[in-house]
Amino acid sequence: MYDAVIIGAGPAGISAAINLKLLGKNFLWVASEPTSLKAARAELIKNYPGLPDVTGEQLCWALKNHAESMGARLTDGVATGVFDTVGKYSVLVGDESYDTRTVILCTGVVTSKPLKGESEFLGRGVSYCAVCDGFLYKGKTICAVIYDKKFEREAEYLCSLAHAVYVLPMYKNCNISAQNARFVDGKPLEISGGLRAETLKTSSTSVSADGFFVLRASVAPATLVKGIETEGGRIIADRKCATNLAGVFAAGDCTGAPYQYAKAVGEGNVAAHSAAEYIDGVK
Amino acid sequence: MYDAVIIGAGPAGISAAINLKLLGKNFLWVASEPTSLKAARAELIKNYPGLPDVTGEQLCWALKNHAESMGARLTDGVATGVFDTVGKYSVLVGDESYDTRTVILCTGVVTSKPLKGESEFLGRGVSYCAVCDGFLYKGKTICAVIYDKKFEREAEYLCSLAHAVYVLPMYKNCNISAQNARFVDGKPLEISGGLRAETLKTSSTSVSADGFFVLRASVAPATLVKGIETEGGRIIADRKCATNLAGVFAAGDCTGAPYQYAKAVGEGNVAAHSAAEYIDGVK
Repeated sequence: MYDAVIIGAGPAGISAAINLKLLGKNFLWVASEPTSLKAARAELIKNYPGLPDVTGEQLCWALKNHAESMGARLTDGVATGVFDTVGKYSVLVGDESYDTRTVILCTGVVTSKPLKGESEFLGRGVSYCAVCDGFLYKGKTICAVIYDKKFEREAEYLCSLAHAVYVLPMYKNCNISAQNARFVDGKPLEISGGLRAETLKTSSTSVSADGFFVLRASVAPATLVKGIETEGGRIIADRKCATNLAGVFAAGDCTGAPYQYAKAVGEGNVAAHSAAEYIDGVK
Repeated sequence: MYDAVIIGAGPAGISAAINLKLLGKNFLWVASEPTSLKAARAELIKNYPGLPDVTGEQLCWALKNHAESMGARLTDGVATGVFDTVGKYSVLVGDESYDTRTVILCTGVVTSKPLKGESEFLGRGVSYCAVCDGFLYKGKTICAVIYDKKFEREAEYLCSLAHAVYVLPMYKNCNISAQNARFVDGKPLEISGGLRAETLKTSSTSVSADGFFVLRASVAPATLVKGIETEGGRIIADRKCATNLAGVFAAGDCTGAPYQYAKAVGEGNVAAHSAAEYIDGVK
């Protein structure tokens, strides 16, 4: 049982990890990217106090190095679900489930909205994780919507299992070499079906399959954590970074504007302290 | 008319100044100390992300240099009052008054509570500013409670005006050379009087005077800003760092725990953005 699971490795997640280390807590730190790619892409940052005129890459490097120098280790993986399991939470990462007293969400801004029907059919033909659920579709037909190049390996894995895989890449120059991969045109619109998901409608066609994999780096907060209160896609958190769910905290861009490094780092600090207080109270 | 007045030069005030500069706002930045002495006193700071293992002095130097490199200039002075003057605020600093659309309070934690009767008789025999009000007591008797060595110059100035000055230093080795300074023993307890302040009771004696000067580096929030909501001495602010007074924002330790550099810097950023939004809305 972990004291905390931190999801995300942007400035908020890094700050939370640094502080939980200092506070002597036993935590899992999981993220689908080694540091936030969005943060690293900034050309010049003038308002991170103490480090004037750094590039996004330099700042991310400094933040990441700081966390590593304190012994905080990042686990590579996409958290796909957080479930309340009576007095604790279970966090699903790939095909593993981790028990924890608290969760600190530092998931950033999710730019892609969930597809219509995606949440509804999750676990009933819709999956976020090829490694976890791929085997269910051995010799069958799969449809995979891929939001990032780095999921191509997972898609290849699906191809190795399935009879055929319909692939909808949401970016240019998708490179999947499997013979049974069939590229589909158009923008994905809606997953529909009966008891289970059956069809994905796109802007130009319709694809029938046995299983649908939606492979993206982060899952919308409301999909990731059942019952969490959001507004306009942002998690509602108070000044202590507490959400409506006891033991679940949120920090950084996922809590809304201003989308700023200093704000994210400040909230990561506050969330870690709030989580520690909560853990010490619960123990 | 300023867009904003920032009060305080700890991490929150510095972050607010950096951001208001970037946002192109016209502001006055005032503080009684060049940087927060409390912040600079920290031996080793391990959790300011990006600057691992810095001393308080190094961190304050880095923050201050950052603000200066952006052209933010600090004005030396103690803000003693913030008054709502119909659609704008007037901030009293020494004997000057500055008009501003918004105020960002980054006053830190005020450790000394106001004396009993201090707020009640403010402006009626009690003053926070020797330079502003000293002349009212020419040839009369003054009592000065001094909380910091740096106010000795103000006390000497009072001595140069008054017939006699009773001095209660709240620290060791007070060095005031004026012939008419009379040191008083004991801890100050209560200022009392009728229409005007008349007497200061200490733990060992009682002092009668015409004017009472309370000289400390920062004034308690509720005394500084009339009508601001506080709880346990901390300013109540929301996630946007807004207080109950439109156009008045608060950031850093003055808003409560956790008392952390990263939190202060994050809130300074948020307060600056909120103030800018408010200014742009008001204009």
